Amino acid sequence: MRIVNVPLAARSYEIKIGPGLLRDLGRHCADLKLGRRCAIISDKNVAPRFAKAVQASLKKAGFESVLITVPVGETAKRIKVVEQCYDALAKHRLERKSFIVALGGGVVGDLAGFVAATYLRGIAFVQVPTTLLAQVDSSVGGKVGVNLKSGKNLVGAFHQPRLVLCDIDTLRTLPTRELRAGLAEVIKYGIIYDAALFERLERDLAKLLKRDPRTLTEVIARCCEIKADVVGQDETETGLRAILNFGHTIGHAIENISGYGKYLHGEAISLGQIAAAQISTAITGLTPDETKRIEIIFKNTGLPTRTKLNASQRKKLFAAMRLDKKVSGGEIKFVLAKRIGETVWGQKVPEQLVNEALDFVSP
Amino acid sequence: MRIVNVPLAARSYEIKIGPGLLRDLGRHCADLKLGRRCAIISDKNVAPRFAKAVQASLKKAGFESVLITVPVGETAKRIKVVEQCYDALAKHRLERKSFIVALGGGVVGDLAGFVAATYLRGIAFVQVPTTLLAQVDSSVGGKVGVNLKSGKNLVGAFHQPRLVLCDIDTLRTLPTRELRAGLAEVIKYGIIYDAALFERLERDLAKLLKRDPRTLTEVIARCCEIKADVVGQDETETGLRAILNFGHTIGHAIENISGYGKYLHGEAISLGQIAAAQISTAITGLTPDETKRIEIIFKNTGLPTRTKLNASQRKKLFAAMRLDKKVSGGEIKFVLAKRIGETVWGQKVPEQLVNEALDFVSP
Repeated sequence: MRIVNVPLAARSYEIKIGPGLLRDLGRHCADLKLGRRCAIISDKNVAPRFAKAVQASLKKAGFESVLITVPVGETAKRIKVVEQCYDALAKHRLERKSFIVALGGGVVGDLAGFVAATYLRGIAFVQVPTTLLAQVDSSVGGKVGVNLKSGKNLVGAFHQPRLVLCDIDTLRTLPTRELRAGLAEVIKYGIIYDAALFERLERDLAKLLKRDPRTLTEVIARCCEIKADVVGQDETETGLRAILNFGHTIGHAIENISGYGKYLHGEAISLGQIAAAQISTAITGLTPDETKRIEIIFKNTGLPTRTKLNASQRKKLFAAMRLDKKVSGGEIKFVLAKRIGETVWGQKVPEQLVNEALDFVSP
Repeated sequence: MRIVNVPLAARSYEIKIGPGLLRDLGRHCADLKLGRRCAIISDKNVAPRFAKAVQASLKKAGFESVLITVPVGETAKRIKVVEQCYDALAKHRLERKSFIVALGGGVVGDLAGFVAATYLRGIAFVQVPTTLLAQVDSSVGGKVGVNLKSGKNLVGAFHQPRLVLCDIDTLRTLPTRELRAGLAEVIKYGIIYDAALFERLERDLAKLLKRDPRTLTEVIARCCEIKADVVGQDETETGLRAILNFGHTIGHAIENISGYGKYLHGEAISLGQIAAAQISTAITGLTPDETKRIEIIFKNTGLPTRTKLNASQRKKLFAAMRLDKKVSGGEIKFVLAKRIGETVWGQKVPEQLVNEALDFVSP
């Protein structure tokens, strides 16, 4: 087991990563001095696989849990589902010291975290991410939220979990497509912060795709370290934290205009990162060789590197980018790479260059 | 004009109290270095009276505002209305630096504050309370939230306003019943924290009921000072802040079982405070003479001091108290007075004594 500490003063917490951790969940929760009552929020795919083990572990440690099952996919990140969760919590008389266990992927974590952030003005929550994407990304940093019709994550809060438990065994049954999508975020950490990680990924990609537990544990721990490092320096996203959005400005917009569900988040940001690398070559001096390596690693991971966008979709894409939270004073700003392992944020990009990058991913 | 500072480190803000302040709103907002775009959230009663002046003042200071009108009363504090507000904000492309002006009573402040706390993970908001209750209570302290079917304020956040502007002139058109209900909170401040304020209220009650601007300004400023003092010592309600809930455990439960709307909040906590005073006499040594003075001042203010509760309503009332946020470990705890001007919180009260206090207010 590897432990990553997320240092946020009174809100510090640990991420535990390794195989077989699920059965110890109750014991770890007991260490946190929480109330006896809790709710597990999970989805219809994940609950049948892991909820029983989680409930047994909690029961063994003296907790009384209720299971709340939500729909699968982005459709669960809706205000209506948030309200259903609130009603279930009230029905089961969760109190201020009660807590929520988020058992599932990023969607479940974002939804359950937002419910925890706002129920009774905020109760504790524990993340048990069961996808690679959630383990390296959404379960670290305290960003929680849901979507509106007009855009992703437009509603939310900053609410730190009390503990994150990444059980590598839960990845064994993860669909290959989702494993690949998770690797898109893993690769991102190499590009934005750690050239050595990027090189390791180029080397160990096959092992990761074969779900080798040791390689997974080490790589996930490194990603969590990087994210914890960045979030620790900038908890509420006023500066540095923006680099985590590399590839996300265009990526989110592609997700948005394609209708949620066509592309997985990791697939959309694969395209977004390839486009951002193109822009970086023009503005921040990323070399064509590095841009090529970036494209190749996404391709070798089995992620999309090209898409189809017609003129009307392009127009929608720009509109979606303008509504994105990263917009300030009406101006779209990008995170760009200076080289693999180093990024800068807040870069203004002429619309012409954005169009050229889109020409590249949508030839 | 009187200014009360609410000292909360990086989240400190000022409350400005006095006549004629509405027309300066834009100028004060300009001092806060906020974005150009903003939304005014108001209700169908208040908007026709004051929204025009507010919009003009904002426009004069260079802001571009959109007006969002919500239903009147507790019915606006619903998740559905929250969602409608989100959609309106997204439609008008409010960004991270944009802000929300809450123009109205406590309901509008709680709703608009919760929308501001969660839209784009939190944007700035300015409170312009137009009822006495909101001026002395809900606009100070950063508690925002909405109701669930199963209870009041079960969903919410702590989100401090950037500025609170209490224009005394807005009280001129306030219905007398609402003025009286606001005075129930004013009296509460005297009981829990300030014997001199309580004595002044006994003396100046007629002036307050006649809406004398000077008396109102001074008394409101004193109430805000007290609340700011308490909140400053305990921002997220882990201790001292609980004293602000004097009379609220039973008061909220009465509101709840009567169906929101029968009693105004101030009317319900008038009954709640009289009951809490009874319990205080039995447990914390409040003298019968003080209990009598408390009852008399509520009576002289024109607030209810007796209600009708049948056996089934009593049962419901206990159930509602148990669901209240103030419950911890299944136990109902009370704020009780030691004498007028001094209270203690976290007091366990035997059910029998609660019943005797209910016998008193519901003979």
